[in-house]
Amino acid sequence: MSSEFSSSPDHFEVRPVGRVRSPLTARTGAPRQADEGAPPAEIVLSPEFAPAAADLHAGMRVVLLTWLHAGSRDVLSVYPRGDRTRPPTGVFATRSPDRPNPIGLHEVTITSVTPEVLGVSGLEAIDGTPILDIKPTLGSVETR
Amino acid sequence: MSSEFSSSPDHFEVRPVGRVRSPLTARTGAPRQADEGAPPAEIVLSPEFAPAAADLHAGMRVVLLTWLHAGSRDVLSVYPRGDRTRPPTGVFATRSPDRPNPIGLHEVTITSVTPEVLGVSGLEAIDGTPILDIKPTLGSVETR
Repeated sequence: MSSEFSSSPDHFEVRPVGRVRSPLTARTGAPRQADEGAPPAEIVLSPEFAPAAADLHAGMRVVLLTWLHAGSRDVLSVYPRGDRTRPPTGVFATRSPDRPNPIGLHEVTITSVTPEVLGVSGLEAIDGTPILDIKPTLGSVETR
Repeated sequence: MSSEFSSSPDHFEVRPVGRVRSPLTARTGAPRQADEGAPPAEIVLSPEFAPAAADLHAGMRVVLLTWLHAGSRDVLSVYPRGDRTRPPTGVFATRSPDRPNPIGLHEVTITSVTPEVLGVSGLEAIDGTPILDIKPTLGSVETR
């Protein structure tokens, strides 16, 4: 095995393909995970990227990738869930939004579809959160 | 609900925190998903980000986020799995590496840990693939 590390770029640019529209407006009031009381929300796609969503339909399970713009990127260890009775933990062993590349993963069910707006079930991301990608969850090998 | 789209930045920068080291060296030879015959591989962390991995241990299930540097970013619809007998499909309904933000998700088990190198089970990413993030999979609400 050998890798060429030296000639690789040291950063890449990501572009939002849309935004979250949600009644959640502050990080402090947001549930930490979707199964902890997150409300219904919407994915509002930028018109230029809407064709990429053409084959999504209500009932599909998808993974949203978001940019957690409130995260601190220079933090490498945190108290899990803000609990200072727990030991500080390297961020790669946590789901903290504070991490070198603050990309959020959210598994949601699509509840409605129009060309530029997708309704989704419980989503813990706050209003305005940039969306980077949408992927179907993987079913069995046979159905791909 | 209201969103402030206008004042938001139109892109963000992501930085690799490490690279994949793998016997897979070409996209054409790589399995499409990890459960389709991917070999053991390693995550080689950049020294500056190694402290973020301090609390990972063998046996943990984690999600790797990678930068799929061979992907085409201007492609909005594809033939799923390259099969032209299937209809072209919006990329958000597929796992194609061709998509506006070519970020890969890979669920793997950590098999060994040293301060800067993590062994992982089946990983379909090719040698040299930049790694953006590592997150634990979510267990039950009670154990977070």
